[in-house]
Amino acid sequence: MATRSLTIDRTKSTERIERDIETLAGADYTRSSEVIRRYAYTPEYRNTLDYFVGELEALGFECYEDPVGTLVARNRPAGEKVFGVGSHCDSLRNGGKYDGTMGVVAVLEVCRLNEELGLGLPLQLISFLEEEGSGFGQMLLGSRIVAQRVTEEELREKFRAIDDGRSFWEHAEEAGYEPERWQDAIRILDDLTGWIELHIEQARVLQDTGNRIGIVGAIAGYVHADVTVHGRSDHAGATPMDFREDAGLVAAECMLKLERLAIEAGGGTVGTVGEIELRPNLINAVPGEARFSLDIRGVNEEGFRGVARDIAAFAKEAAEKRGMSAEYAQRQSLPATPLDESVVAALEGAAEASGEPFMTMHSGAAHDTMSIADRIPSAMVFVPCKDGISHSPEEDANPADAALGAEIMLNAIRTLAAGGR
Amino acid sequence: MATRSLTIDRTKSTERIERDIETLAGADYTRSSEVIRRYAYTPEYRNTLDYFVGELEALGFECYEDPVGTLVARNRPAGEKVFGVGSHCDSLRNGGKYDGTMGVVAVLEVCRLNEELGLGLPLQLISFLEEEGSGFGQMLLGSRIVAQRVTEEELREKFRAIDDGRSFWEHAEEAGYEPERWQDAIRILDDLTGWIELHIEQARVLQDTGNRIGIVGAIAGYVHADVTVHGRSDHAGATPMDFREDAGLVAAECMLKLERLAIEAGGGTVGTVGEIELRPNLINAVPGEARFSLDIRGVNEEGFRGVARDIAAFAKEAAEKRGMSAEYAQRQSLPATPLDESVVAALEGAAEASGEPFMTMHSGAAHDTMSIADRIPSAMVFVPCKDGISHSPEEDANPADAALGAEIMLNAIRTLAAGGR
Repeated sequence: MATRSLTIDRTKSTERIERDIETLAGADYTRSSEVIRRYAYTPEYRNTLDYFVGELEALGFECYEDPVGTLVARNRPAGEKVFGVGSHCDSLRNGGKYDGTMGVVAVLEVCRLNEELGLGLPLQLISFLEEEGSGFGQMLLGSRIVAQRVTEEELREKFRAIDDGRSFWEHAEEAGYEPERWQDAIRILDDLTGWIELHIEQARVLQDTGNRIGIVGAIAGYVHADVTVHGRSDHAGATPMDFREDAGLVAAECMLKLERLAIEAGGGTVGTVGEIELRPNLINAVPGEARFSLDIRGVNEEGFRGVARDIAAFAKEAAEKRGMSAEYAQRQSLPATPLDESVVAALEGAAEASGEPFMTMHSGAAHDTMSIADRIPSAMVFVPCKDGISHSPEEDANPADAALGAEIMLNAIRTLAAGGR
Repeated sequence: MATRSLTIDRTKSTERIERDIETLAGADYTRSSEVIRRYAYTPEYRNTLDYFVGELEALGFECYEDPVGTLVARNRPAGEKVFGVGSHCDSLRNGGKYDGTMGVVAVLEVCRLNEELGLGLPLQLISFLEEEGSGFGQMLLGSRIVAQRVTEEELREKFRAIDDGRSFWEHAEEAGYEPERWQDAIRILDDLTGWIELHIEQARVLQDTGNRIGIVGAIAGYVHADVTVHGRSDHAGATPMDFREDAGLVAAECMLKLERLAIEAGGGTVGTVGEIELRPNLINAVPGEARFSLDIRGVNEEGFRGVARDIAAFAKEAAEKRGMSAEYAQRQSLPATPLDESVVAALEGAAEASGEPFMTMHSGAAHDTMSIADRIPSAMVFVPCKDGISHSPEEDANPADAALGAEIMLNAIRTLAAGGR
């Protein structure tokens, strides 16, 4: 059954979204006056949850938190099917106003519009705990707990607060939660028929292509690794070129090779050397050791993993050709996350109906949606952020784009609720 | 007139040199028990000068210091011609036993042999103040003062102690010197007919070619500079390859180009990127800025300066090709120092006569000899140091090589004193 697209009062929604964003950038909601800084179990994070709870209860939503603090709000009793919407409202330690929070604010607006327009859509809002890892150094922590992608030992012992070194478990208990019930967190997914997360893009593709909306069809997987090249440090003035084992030159060859490998792999595969460390790092010393990081991502699993294998092999060969050695060590890796075709199609249809420029794309950055997309039919909506700047107090985004995103999510959920488009 | 080469008792000289080196590595002569650390105007440096004065006075030498503290010892009254020998006896803050000190010890042995064998050569030993810059951050400071290659303003104001920030001038006065007479320091060169400095090689050419002695025919000049590439930092996962301005990749291209340029320039020209700094230097961020150092040296003035010009131009082109910019900024530069052919020839003849393996080479590192070679016919003698390691407490060298160097210096000076070979 086809559903006619609604056009909302975008100006009104823009104003409400802007008010929410600015409110949550105020002194009660950040531990720093210079940047946005809020993370699990701090008073500022509690205030932020309370703000959302207040707004959602006013709309008639029932709010609760999972056993460690992920916020859930729904307009139907437990057991009834609902459509999930959300993001996260914690920030980096030196974060901006929009990363995560704009997503929760936009889906709050979806909930408002649903009530205001009397649409009667069954909705469940989720704001996941600790997406950024600012409290315990663990990204996507709340959604990984929901997805049971942690171990009890990690929660009890290994995950420790950056601030005081005490365990996640201890902090959760102190904040009044029941970490011993963490495995029940998965229950918050029980009634979900689908899931949409809105987030700022954190890159410049939307801005530079003139699109206001990105419909995300897949989230890239990644490999994070380091290559260490072992050469020999010598006096830069006194060591002839043919006596050297300059580890920096192998690093340089690998940097350029990685670029070629990523371009050849195609399909949006990317490869980056973001960190380099030379030893001893002195102007007058031939580098005796070079360590550089690898960040390789893509939605094509074989594509990006192939690049990682190829650069590891290349580094060893390039080092050996110069009489040195190199070792490759993986830090961590996550597979690519394909998103749900029907949810993506519903969003594309709604975006098309909005009359505004949009594109279908993939996400190079990780998001909470990765944790639940294998269980719940999921997709994401991106809105532009200025110059692609994120993870910085300079982060900037337009509430009008988030309002447009709310309209598109609302229409997509209507389409899906109606059983197709 | 040809002079027959003497063969000294090398075992005896080796023992004396070793004793001197080990004495000066003792607690009274270093500010650290882990490393050798001595520099101008410290009690440990004073003790070191006093040790040499004691040994030299016992040989009948008259000792004095120039107006800021460079040690001079001679076996002829002022006004009579003498042949100069020496080096420096300060160290890096984390230095070893041999850099500099082994040279002063070896020429002390030349003075001993001269007396012991009744050769009657007129000699002047010099131990230059502050070669390493550990006290005031200024390399070759004592010899530059002798050569008048400093300004009064620098000595009075600009050159400041690393330890307490007070001026060189103030420290010199406090130590009992007369810095206001610094321009008289040049007088220590008045009677010199020639100059030979012995030093550890600080590279591995002698070791790796199986030579015990290097006769230095030239000291490389150098250019120290930085290149800064201005790109744009973006999210490493979310930014497609063709949207990037990755400053690190331009740095990598320049590193490899510098290697090719130095090899093409030939004649021992060398080029090194020893420092790299990426910003923000995060695994998941495309480098927005890359700064790297350039150390380019050679004895062919046009050769190494051409490499510096070419890499500066290449960096700009390489950056522009990728839509970025790059700037080149020189830190400092010194011209190459040709050494004296007749002193070099006398040393080569003496080395040949020693029956030990030697080679003629150039010095890639800077030495005090650079400060005086335009006024005094000069050359240098290098001895191997283990694996080329220097500027480190791991520095190691063989006193037997220094004894051989003393024999070669002694014979070369005899040849020169006799008016040729």
